[in-house]
Amino acid sequence: MSELERYTVTMPHELLEAFDSRNERKGYRNRSEAIRDLVRDALIREQWTEPNCRAAATLTLIYDHHTRAIGDRITELQHDFGELVVSTLHVHLDHHNCLEVLVMRGMSEEIRRLADAIGCIKGVKHAQLTLTAEGRDLH
Amino acid sequence: MSELERYTVTMPHELLEAFDSRNERKGYRNRSEAIRDLVRDALIREQWTEPNCRAAATLTLIYDHHTRAIGDRITELQHDFGELVVSTLHVHLDHHNCLEVLVMRGMSEEIRRLADAIGCIKGVKHAQLTLTAEGRDLH
Amino acid sequence: MSELERYTVTMPHELLEAFDSRNERKGYRNRSEAIRDLVRDALIREQWTEPNCRAAATLTLIYDHHTRAIGDRITELQHDFGELVVSTLHVHLDHHNCLEVLVMRGMSEEIRRLADAIGCIKGVKHAQLTLTAEGRDLH
Amino acid sequence: MSELERYTVTMPHELLEAFDSRNERKGYRNRSEAIRDLVRDALIREQWTEPNCRAAATLTLIYDHHTRAIGDRITELQHDFGELVVSTLHVHLDHHNCLEVLVMRGMSEEIRRLADAIGCIKGVKHAQLTLTAEGRDLH
Repeated sequence: MSELERYTVTMPHELLEAFDSRNERKGYRNRSEAIRDLVRDALIREQWTEPNCRAAATLTLIYDHHTRAIGDRITELQHDFGELVVSTLHVHLDHHNCLEVLVMRGMSEEIRRLADAIGCIKGVKHAQLTLTAEGRDLH
Repeated sequence: MSELERYTVTMPHELLEAFDSRNERKGYRNRSEAIRDLVRDALIREQWTEPNCRAAATLTLIYDHHTRAIGDRITELQHDFGELVVSTLHVHLDHHNCLEVLVMRGMSEEIRRLADAIGCIKGVKHAQLTLTAEGRDLH
Repeated sequence: MSELERYTVTMPHELLEAFDSRNERKGYRNRSEAIRDLVRDALIREQWTEPNCRAAATLTLIYDHHTRAIGDRITELQHDFGELVVSTLHVHLDHHNCLEVLVMRGMSEEIRRLADAIGCIKGVKHAQLTLTAEGRDLH
Repeated sequence: MSELERYTVTMPHELLEAFDSRNERKGYRNRSEAIRDLVRDALIREQWTEPNCRAAATLTLIYDHHTRAIGDRITELQHDFGELVVSTLHVHLDHHNCLEVLVMRGMSEEIRRLADAIGCIKGVKHAQLTLTAEGRDLH
């Protein structure tokens, strides 16, 4: 845990009121925590508009496991991308549908390419890439 | 302009460094300005997940003005929605294509409905709704 | 698996060319698969602008497990929300940081409330909600 | 207007039903129009994840025109960026607040840089960049 720094922020009274009531509704205990979250979120969103960088991400899939060979194809693709996929979680939604989450670490372009490739597989009904950062960039 | 309030924020040293260098790259002169922008942006984004509220928005359209009667249809629809559309701006992109921006004020559900209706018109190639707030909510 | 229907789509030649080359780059084998994905994605995104509906979602967290009692708090909150959280996946990113994914099913407002509550916990550095649908709505 | 091509799409019955009822709610007259819109929207969104490309965009600003010299600063910045800004629209929201829309054409990185620079100006309460395409890329 790194050293904490303190600094002063100025804000119009009404903006602070709106911010405080938003923070209370969400459950924040203090403004600093809320501001740190806004800052980290902005840094992560902006990082992902950069050309290529180290990152972490999750890919959320909904697919019909009755589609022929779909499980094998999803697994094969993951292996094609070497050590990009760290771990996966599988949930049975109903008789037909599975939800699967892949946790990925690596270069952002590779992450996007794997997400595209899996999203294209027949039987994958929805694929959504969620971009985050490796912890060490986040303080 | 409302009264300014001051308060102290604590932040890990490395997060502050990353925030400062981001702010410098973007052109912010001080942290308070950058934080106020993050707070206002969060308030606006969260407001638009609420069911229905007063709001302002812009609708950016790309359309081919050679499509039969397209200008009339876009105008008619605006009149159907009463005073929702405050003003419009028209830019000629090339021989075929126009970019048009509609500035809207009113209830957010009405704004979405008009955006949907215009987006469906044949010849409208791209319609994108940008959500903001009426100034009085922003301090 | 439900019955397949066929219908004809018309599209300007150049748009079709751009679509085909995008599909090839992404890895789609045929246009129908690419169109089905676009349709399902639009349905899901639009569903989430509705006030409250049944849905599935994942919440991706990055947190510092050295923060006092953070694991307990995240777990307690999940229990407060009854059966909303179906399953979780935990990945160790480095000495300090964990990535955790929660898979949730239930009403969309509850899902948002839990995501807010967890995002506010001290030590949770990034929380990102990814909205999808329960499989039965997706064909 | 380019030549129209026809092709056949297959879709599960229930997905088609959901798509049709969505299209009717929005106001689409036929499926082809709805599909063309989804395709163009996907192409535009994906284009903007590319490093740098020709594009069009709008920047929506809310600002307090009482802030000293704010109008001059916004104007100066636009001139610094040469011919990037094609046109602007100004709306008086209330005694304090203005909404201004800038229509921009040029390279996407330049567009982002100008948007950042204007967003940082003191008194600019909200700046939102909306990405679209020049018409010639959209058929």
